[in-house]
Amino acid sequence: MNRTNLISEIKKKSSFLCVGLDTDIKKIPSHLLNEADPVFAFNKEIIDATADHCVSYKINTAFYESLGSKGWETMEKTLAYIPKNIFTIADAKRGDIGNTSDMYARAFFETLHFDSVTIAPYMGKDSIEPFFKYENKWAIVLALTSNPGSSDYELQQIGDEKLFETVIRKTCEIGNPSNLMFVVGATKAQALGEIRKLIPDHFLLVPGVGAQGGSLSEVAKYGMNNDCGLLINASRSIIYASSGKDFAEKANAEAKQMSVEMKKLLEDFKIIS
Amino acid sequence: MNRTNLISEIKKKSSFLCVGLDTDIKKIPSHLLNEADPVFAFNKEIIDATADHCVSYKINTAFYESLGSKGWETMEKTLAYIPKNIFTIADAKRGDIGNTSDMYARAFFETLHFDSVTIAPYMGKDSIEPFFKYENKWAIVLALTSNPGSSDYELQQIGDEKLFETVIRKTCEIGNPSNLMFVVGATKAQALGEIRKLIPDHFLLVPGVGAQGGSLSEVAKYGMNNDCGLLINASRSIIYASSGKDFAEKANAEAKQMSVEMKKLLEDFKIIS
Repeated sequence: MNRTNLISEIKKKSSFLCVGLDTDIKKIPSHLLNEADPVFAFNKEIIDATADHCVSYKINTAFYESLGSKGWETMEKTLAYIPKNIFTIADAKRGDIGNTSDMYARAFFETLHFDSVTIAPYMGKDSIEPFFKYENKWAIVLALTSNPGSSDYELQQIGDEKLFETVIRKTCEIGNPSNLMFVVGATKAQALGEIRKLIPDHFLLVPGVGAQGGSLSEVAKYGMNNDCGLLINASRSIIYASSGKDFAEKANAEAKQMSVEMKKLLEDFKIIS
Repeated sequence: MNRTNLISEIKKKSSFLCVGLDTDIKKIPSHLLNEADPVFAFNKEIIDATADHCVSYKINTAFYESLGSKGWETMEKTLAYIPKNIFTIADAKRGDIGNTSDMYARAFFETLHFDSVTIAPYMGKDSIEPFFKYENKWAIVLALTSNPGSSDYELQQIGDEKLFETVIRKTCEIGNPSNLMFVVGATKAQALGEIRKLIPDHFLLVPGVGAQGGSLSEVAKYGMNNDCGLLINASRSIIYASSGKDFAEKANAEAKQMSVEMKKLLEDFKIIS
């Protein structure tokens, strides 16, 4: 999906919600465990219940890999089930030397057909470049993450900037606002204001609203730009809103509630009228 | 596999060679493409041909993921085929917030039964900790990699040390020489001397010998410790030593040649007599 279509979907749905399919077989309602593929059965109902209220789904590869090749199959089926007008993210945090990153790009953009993949930048620019060879595909590079460990390296000072700022600056030398987003945690809302000075136009993928405690309105206040420029992810607060048979209904209510708040923010910022 | 057994295998085989199974279906000999699982057929012959000369196999997950769930199955079969006295590495470069890293640890240590997994440290200590919950399993954390992009962040100065040194120092607060190794590229042989001052006892996984141009004797000179302390990886130079029907024979010759050189180095350093 290209940038124009993504922005158009955000305006059409009045939402910049990304639903995180971090589906843990140990946490899904027990009545689904009789299904041939319980995780897929769960995801299918979650997608049906939330697709009208979100513009993106983020599939966290770890949860599927924990089930081995069967889990990888479940990921393929889940991706295929997502409606084509919804932006898909492989939250895989890959990154390796060039010829290996080529293979990861092939995995997520050719074999699977994700719109985007998250990338860990530690190994440098040449580990990210292969992801930019594909038209209308995106690399979403970790900048400042939502976890406590972000202070270990990301927030360390390198010369007159912090490591995550160096990452943003250097990655912008090889990507542009039509193929590159950054991950910035919602728990770091105020840093978003500073980040917007560096990259006014890029989309930001913002996890950490919901279970991790970030605030939606704070993120919008500091991070929104004229095209919205935000995809806000919520995973556990939506998909595990109930552990009973009404899980899809409760997920729908939670996603709807978030999209109602998002509509108001999009109106406040004059992105929609 | 625990540290004592790893060292014992190195001495018994007079080798510290790790063979990298970076198997690209586009590069394997054409006569194998008629097999039901060409990549597994290739890996099986490579393992048969090299197992006597190496102490470790490193499976690069990217190459398997590029084939989707079928590739993940091939990875499972390959892992199961590796003899139990050989140390196995999932070269996966994973790393995420705690609850997601838990899932990656489950994927590689419980569902698959790798001895170790490579980890990208960008997100900080709490993204690595879950991998230390397993007895006789190892996290192999990226420190200084062999690619040109290592200068982008890894070699940047943070206070009085470089980022990769900060990574080594901080990760040593949560891991120890019996569950933690570091990746240091062979193309950075001289840095190994400095790194050995920081971590005299830890094993180092050293890629970059062979196709990437690193020197085996230089790596040993600067990086070897009293227990050897090195796993030197070669991938392309062994597995693609020939593109013909004699690929396994040529891989055997190449692995044997490396292990002969390694035997001499182990003798020179008085690790074996």
